[in-house]
Amino acid sequence: MADNNNNNKQVTIETQRAKSGMWFMEDVAPGLKIQSELRSIIAMTQSEYQDIQVIESYFGKTLVTDGKTQSAELDEYAYHESLVHPALIQSALLMNNGQGPKTVFIGGGGELATARECLRHESVERVVMVDLDGEVVEVSKKYLPEWGGEAVTSDPRFELVIGDAYQWLLDTEERFDVMILDISDPIEAGPGIMLYVQEFYQHAVTRLAPGHGVFVTQAGMADAIPSSMFSKGEQDTSCYGPIRNTLATVFNAVVPYSSNIPSFGSDWGFVMAYNNGGGDEESLSSRVDELLKQQFGGNDPLKFYDQVTHARMFNLTKPLRKSLEEDKRIMTKENPIFMY
Amino acid sequence: MADNNNNNKQVTIETQRAKSGMWFMEDVAPGLKIQSELRSIIAMTQSEYQDIQVIESYFGKTLVTDGKTQSAELDEYAYHESLVHPALIQSALLMNNGQGPKTVFIGGGGELATARECLRHESVERVVMVDLDGEVVEVSKKYLPEWGGEAVTSDPRFELVIGDAYQWLLDTEERFDVMILDISDPIEAGPGIMLYVQEFYQHAVTRLAPGHGVFVTQAGMADAIPSSMFSKGEQDTSCYGPIRNTLATVFNAVVPYSSNIPSFGSDWGFVMAYNNGGGDEESLSSRVDELLKQQFGGNDPLKFYDQVTHARMFNLTKPLRKSLEEDKRIMTKENPIFMY
Amino acid sequence: MADNNNNNKQVTIETQRAKSGMWFMEDVAPGLKIQSELRSIIAMTQSEYQDIQVIESYFGKTLVTDGKTQSAELDEYAYHESLVHPALIQSALLMNNGQGPKTVFIGGGGELATARECLRHESVERVVMVDLDGEVVEVSKKYLPEWGGEAVTSDPRFELVIGDAYQWLLDTEERFDVMILDISDPIEAGPGIMLYVQEFYQHAVTRLAPGHGVFVTQAGMADAIPSSMFSKGEQDTSCYGPIRNTLATVFNAVVPYSSNIPSFGSDWGFVMAYNNGGGDEESLSSRVDELLKQQFGGNDPLKFYDQVTHARMFNLTKPLRKSLEEDKRIMTKENPIFMY
Amino acid sequence: MADNNNNNKQVTIETQRAKSGMWFMEDVAPGLKIQSELRSIIAMTQSEYQDIQVIESYFGKTLVTDGKTQSAELDEYAYHESLVHPALIQSALLMNNGQGPKTVFIGGGGELATARECLRHESVERVVMVDLDGEVVEVSKKYLPEWGGEAVTSDPRFELVIGDAYQWLLDTEERFDVMILDISDPIEAGPGIMLYVQEFYQHAVTRLAPGHGVFVTQAGMADAIPSSMFSKGEQDTSCYGPIRNTLATVFNAVVPYSSNIPSFGSDWGFVMAYNNGGGDEESLSSRVDELLKQQFGGNDPLKFYDQVTHARMFNLTKPLRKSLEEDKRIMTKENPIFMY
Repeated sequence: MADNNNNNKQVTIETQRAKSGMWFMEDVAPGLKIQSELRSIIAMTQSEYQDIQVIESYFGKTLVTDGKTQSAELDEYAYHESLVHPALIQSALLMNNGQGPKTVFIGGGGELATARECLRHESVERVVMVDLDGEVVEVSKKYLPEWGGEAVTSDPRFELVIGDAYQWLLDTEERFDVMILDISDPIEAGPGIMLYVQEFYQHAVTRLAPGHGVFVTQAGMADAIPSSMFSKGEQDTSCYGPIRNTLATVFNAVVPYSSNIPSFGSDWGFVMAYNNGGGDEESLSSRVDELLKQQFGGNDPLKFYDQVTHARMFNLTKPLRKSLEEDKRIMTKENPIFMY
Repeated sequence: MADNNNNNKQVTIETQRAKSGMWFMEDVAPGLKIQSELRSIIAMTQSEYQDIQVIESYFGKTLVTDGKTQSAELDEYAYHESLVHPALIQSALLMNNGQGPKTVFIGGGGELATARECLRHESVERVVMVDLDGEVVEVSKKYLPEWGGEAVTSDPRFELVIGDAYQWLLDTEERFDVMILDISDPIEAGPGIMLYVQEFYQHAVTRLAPGHGVFVTQAGMADAIPSSMFSKGEQDTSCYGPIRNTLATVFNAVVPYSSNIPSFGSDWGFVMAYNNGGGDEESLSSRVDELLKQQFGGNDPLKFYDQVTHARMFNLTKPLRKSLEEDKRIMTKENPIFMY
Repeated sequence: MADNNNNNKQVTIETQRAKSGMWFMEDVAPGLKIQSELRSIIAMTQSEYQDIQVIESYFGKTLVTDGKTQSAELDEYAYHESLVHPALIQSALLMNNGQGPKTVFIGGGGELATARECLRHESVERVVMVDLDGEVVEVSKKYLPEWGGEAVTSDPRFELVIGDAYQWLLDTEERFDVMILDISDPIEAGPGIMLYVQEFYQHAVTRLAPGHGVFVTQAGMADAIPSSMFSKGEQDTSCYGPIRNTLATVFNAVVPYSSNIPSFGSDWGFVMAYNNGGGDEESLSSRVDELLKQQFGGNDPLKFYDQVTHARMFNLTKPLRKSLEEDKRIMTKENPIFMY
Repeated sequence: MADNNNNNKQVTIETQRAKSGMWFMEDVAPGLKIQSELRSIIAMTQSEYQDIQVIESYFGKTLVTDGKTQSAELDEYAYHESLVHPALIQSALLMNNGQGPKTVFIGGGGELATARECLRHESVERVVMVDLDGEVVEVSKKYLPEWGGEAVTSDPRFELVIGDAYQWLLDTEERFDVMILDISDPIEAGPGIMLYVQEFYQHAVTRLAPGHGVFVTQAGMADAIPSSMFSKGEQDTSCYGPIRNTLATVFNAVVPYSSNIPSFGSDWGFVMAYNNGGGDEESLSSRVDELLKQQFGGNDPLKFYDQVTHARMFNLTKPLRKSLEEDKRIMTKENPIFMY
């Protein structure tokens, strides 16, 4: 506002950050919060479904819905690359013909960055994204252009549907090479709970291309030391195990993996699932860089994901593997499991 | 932003407040903070002297400099009425001729609300306000019009000087009926420390009208239980006693009083001082309403101050009186005392 | 633990306080918290009715139940003296025979400090205290001896009943000179709500001595600027007005007053009520010191309350008086009002 | 304290946790804090060097020095196994004779858990641990027996020296198979800074066994997205790169790796270094489980580390690798680099 052309502006900005007294506080788990400096509030609004904020915090520009960080400028690419690329190259690997997936369905994904990553793949000809909350898409286009914005929505391969992803899949005859669920955690009050249950997965598999169809979903907190170990016999509110188990009732290959996402305050879980033919399967881990090169026409547009990062993501720690082995819970419409 | 014409908007706004996760945190004393919901950030800037924020918190629109609340929409009038009116009616009482003070000097007062209260008095013909930081005045005019804004700066009786109040008083020959010091607390790094020392008061008294000149200054935290009792032998960082004591080396009537200002997180101290003739003095406490009526032409424009409020303000609790009695510290240029 | 006989121990303790990272956070109102350094945890337990903690915070040793500060070492006397002494000397004034109240009923008061203050009065021959939660009394005796402890419970004039104060008063034929309600705020989940409703007051008055019986109750937050002004049309969660109004349906003299209690984060309200004869009444405010001298045999054992403090307590600010005037709510069993 | 034999004790404990209002707050980076529920304070003391607390937080029993979490009950094994075992089996691999390291030097390690992990190895005959602060060792023995405690200190293979690790290594002629630096981060005020500089590493290498000597040090925060990317051109306070670079001036094999340690609020870095012969080297990653079996006599005593966990630890994310590549800083006595 003021014209401060002094040389030590950098210093004073640092000072102001320390002095401003403004903070963003987020519950990560019962008894655990993250407190991040709040540098500015860019937008606040409400949709039919949720409160939506765009703030600038320690993690840069951040989309927050109902008080929960959805993604942040400085590490959103870690989340979105982790969610998208393993599934697409797994599909390419299953196709095993030097080609890659052509059609992708995204449930949720309102920030547009999941679509952005899909559209990087040269083989992709069609991305259908069905999100319940058009307001999130509008806010993202306006305030988070780095997430994808107009570049995504104006891409002729991209189709946006504002509506219920489950219903859309019930109504369609289409089958997709890859199906990506990028929705809020299954919390009690949330609209997304029905996209984590067995009934949904049973239908979703019928909308995947036989042979090379790959499904992937975000799956909540997945720290090296699983949160169940912190709760000491109290209710385990992690859904990582239940999501994996529920998918395993529908798919014969179910692969949990995780990435460190600093703005989420923990490592974050994903589960990829597909039905392989049961014959000789090629392992993905040793062919990541080769397949990415195939998909990107020899370029390397990614900032987070490559073959070495893949090894980090897909090798889970011993306590997390043990926790997953011991978890037998399955999520159904009648018996959903709610995260914190 | 969105067009939400639903009926339960009120409910959802309340919900958003609870969910947003945004807070303003302020140190009140070493080991004590206030955490207030942060509803919006209206402006952030920096002047040559300090960081300036206008935020909306639990206390409404709030001016913050260097992380310290200066005044807040919902109780600024309690602070400004407490600071201004006792001194002006005390001057009227000393004049004892049915007239009131004509000239007022304000040191500081950048938010313009101190001037606003002075200008309510029909007897006032001239208000000179000298504040170091023109940026605070600009921000206040633009974002805090309720504090006074243009209505004050465009009043022909009002003169604004951006500069050093001490120096201005050294340079002038003028004498004022009332002198009001509305400046930041005497903290180590602050510019205001020199406006709390004996040398300043010794000069200030020479710029007051003989007989009916009244001086008043804000004087920091003044809880019912003085903060010195919380520090348990550690350094007492309250300046209420030292300000009173230092004024008492210059004036023969020195009256400490205090008001509860919720947004400051405590009761707040003020000290009024004047030299009475030593003869029969009329007591102010029983004539407040009468003098206010005289000053306001029979109207009652005030929201906080009246004769009953005056009784609350000027009767200090027993432990606070005891603490003041025991405090013998005096502030000089060589031996300033710094608040927290 | 370690034997650190170094000279700068004082400094290092201060340093540790700053470094320890331990805080006690308390909700004061929706959107407002106080954060006080936590120096130690002295005891944690649970009774049948509530969680009970004794911690050491910025305010010294502090009793906390269900996360709410009940009273703190460094200002508990301000609260307890404010609650007790005005009612007892008002009763003495009504007796108007140079004698004071002989019997006192306390509802709640588990910390024992309310009884401690009553027992200071030489005229008092019997104090019956009925508290629901014996665990609070035990914790207070063991960890908060400064509040009264054994000195109270071993006083032959003191009778302790663990039980329901309302029921005890229904069962007794006894009448008391003074009745003091020192119970938790009327919150939804709290056990105390029935001690704030009209039906209770209608019965309580029948257990007061005719002519000079005086009733007093704590009455929650009562800032200079009432909290209703902060809620901007949202639900007013203050009970100060409703308690006063409800008492006014039963007593013809109802006097709200308030004291600044720093550890409560605000000014705190009380309401005193009695039925005067309707004839010439003497005013209490000018006779406080005289009546205290009568009651204490010429000694001055009090740290907070005297005639000047009384003037502060009983003169409410203009906005608080206005808010009380406008508040017409009454609390009944069928229509209770819940504080935050 | 109270005898509450009610059935819903579990529920009420959960409730108390939510209600207690007690929190432990820790700065993780400038502008980022973690707030963890504080369930109890087990011990507070001060040594000659630092403040020492043992608290119970969300992460279980936690050792805190100068306000910084050192290790926590529920994930200390992740930290200590990550620090110790890769170096010991790397040494065994370099020995290449079916035997493992016999002698280990630990600089720091006062919690005793680093020694605990070393002593699990059947080949280990001698562990010398030199820690500056005997008080930390005493506190750990008394309050953190799960970390190792008496079982470590009474092991005849274990030698404890209270003193300066650097000086001890200057004074000895002994050479060690493995050298582990388990000390505080290089912060400005900390005693450990000299154990991170080039001069120290240049001496340390002379105290390692030729051929199979392996050095390892903890190396501070090492998130998937390096913190330098959050600071946006401001000073990078991470020391992961400088530690790796400085070790690379002394060792020809320098391997940075990291593990997710939830109680540290981020992924945590380590750097392993050794001088290999330059000939055919066997890769550690494919032989972890085999070497652990050799070292533990066929048993599997570890909770965190195995061959799959190793793959996670030693495959760093693309942005972290990029950040390490670009970092050219080296730490010397004259030019140390301070972490936050």
